[in-house]
Amino acid sequence: MSITVVGTIGIDDIETPFGRVERTLGGSAAYFALAAANYEPVNLIAVVGEDLPAHSLDPLRGDRIDLTGIEQGQGPNFRWGGRYHMDFNTRDTLFTELGVLADFQPKMPGAYRDAAILFLANLQPSVQMQVIEQAPNARLVALDTMNFWISSARDDLTRVLGMVDMVFMAEDELREFAGIANLRAAAQRVMNMGPKFLVIKLGSYGALLLGRDGTYFAAPAFPLDEVRDPTGAGDSFAGGFLGSLAAALANKRELGAVDYRRALLHGNIMGAFACEAFGVERFASLTRTDLDARYNQLVSYTHIDGGA
Amino acid sequence: MSITVVGTIGIDDIETPFGRVERTLGGSAAYFALAAANYEPVNLIAVVGEDLPAHSLDPLRGDRIDLTGIEQGQGPNFRWGGRYHMDFNTRDTLFTELGVLADFQPKMPGAYRDAAILFLANLQPSVQMQVIEQAPNARLVALDTMNFWISSARDDLTRVLGMVDMVFMAEDELREFAGIANLRAAAQRVMNMGPKFLVIKLGSYGALLLGRDGTYFAAPAFPLDEVRDPTGAGDSFAGGFLGSLAAALANKRELGAVDYRRALLHGNIMGAFACEAFGVERFASLTRTDLDARYNQLVSYTHIDGGA
Repeated sequence: MSITVVGTIGIDDIETPFGRVERTLGGSAAYFALAAANYEPVNLIAVVGEDLPAHSLDPLRGDRIDLTGIEQGQGPNFRWGGRYHMDFNTRDTLFTELGVLADFQPKMPGAYRDAAILFLANLQPSVQMQVIEQAPNARLVALDTMNFWISSARDDLTRVLGMVDMVFMAEDELREFAGIANLRAAAQRVMNMGPKFLVIKLGSYGALLLGRDGTYFAAPAFPLDEVRDPTGAGDSFAGGFLGSLAAALANKRELGAVDYRRALLHGNIMGAFACEAFGVERFASLTRTDLDARYNQLVSYTHIDGGA
Repeated sequence: MSITVVGTIGIDDIETPFGRVERTLGGSAAYFALAAANYEPVNLIAVVGEDLPAHSLDPLRGDRIDLTGIEQGQGPNFRWGGRYHMDFNTRDTLFTELGVLADFQPKMPGAYRDAAILFLANLQPSVQMQVIEQAPNARLVALDTMNFWISSARDDLTRVLGMVDMVFMAEDELREFAGIANLRAAAQRVMNMGPKFLVIKLGSYGALLLGRDGTYFAAPAFPLDEVRDPTGAGDSFAGGFLGSLAAALANKRELGAVDYRRALLHGNIMGAFACEAFGVERFASLTRTDLDARYNQLVSYTHIDGGA
């Protein structure tokens, strides 16, 4: 079952203790699509600028990601620059230039409307709402957000939360938005606004899945020998999670508890893959065999019987 | 199979956003013993001061904890005062008065020498060494340490690491001691000094178990609706972990992978119980039924099939 994502295509400058890259493909929609396409076909909606370097979109090309929803805007592309330090838990944003993103009015191609899952990557909440209205047939609508909208567009964010089935939030974003330090209580407050499920991203500690039905599931991060660049880990996490759910939906009518639990492991696995190389590089060589091997490892790391 | 613990008996003043207590029973040996005694009998070695309030040791009395190893020192008892803030991840130590602890030379009662497991709670590494030498028959020797000894007694700490089977370290202590940011690489460096297993305590994120044999196992924290006082959580964690191993040793000759994995869940469960009330209070009402219920819950929170 295909997945539609609306988000950003960025040109990123990234600096980590392991090196630096300039003008590399980035953006939430790029990471999400590359992760989710390992499971099911992805439809991408984004806007690009006139200065997008030739071949920038090459990593997205192939038969798994539909790019007809990429619109050419008038003006410069969205750009982001960031620097990570040795512990990778904090980063400095060096610059953010919205460019064509500032006036982005996403339009959903007709062929995208039948996608089973719609993912609204981090964007202005009012824009996220416009996209939801264009996809009335989606069986599952999921949303990502970030601190910036929590402080600058809280009312719109609250409204869009009432329109989605699932939300991805980083731990600190959840605490800030809910105004509650205890994660379970904070999650309950957000779910009371509408979403049936909340995924709390804990960075290098993994993630939690909570549900209005009492669901509570925890998955650790997939341990890496070396983190090279965490850019895009959150969007890749969402791609693994929703990609895995889309694959489950291809085989059954209704998602069950086991599907959501597996999805949380797949999210962590894709988030880790994103961290293993600069930018979106790791996805170029990623195979289904790599993915299955890591899934089985992560099961063995968390199950008392080793997942046997 | 019984467990011997050597550590501190403290008089604590604790302040959290939920209230404050003064002159309450604390110390690493107290928390460890109260947690481990839920599984197997515990032998306690510690020194107390002349000013220890009457009835202070009452929470430890009963048929599960042998107190004959508590020595009466000359001088004031060890005292500690701390203040926690809203997020509970940082605490201010308000005062530490060593008192009789400064000259503590632990002596192991003869009846303690047959204990299967020896736990060296946080103490000066040279003192920990003296205790190991008095327990040549222990089948498993485990050690806890803290930042203070890493900076002030690194050589002794390195030597004692060569004499133990297992180490408990908080994430930041491990990074500091090993001088490596990546947890797996840091753990490998410590295990190269001797220990077969390393347990990394991640605070509110749970814990990891790593082994020289390649063991890697992760367990999340048991989620609480309310954290009231995290004092003693690390020692209670060790008590749950080693208590559970001692119970396994009562039924079999050799510990297997499943025993260590279960122990990591029990550690997290006991750490969480410690946080639910001030000081050691929660242990007074704790039943085997509570413990088993939480264990089953934590399995269901981490196993894809819900632990069924």
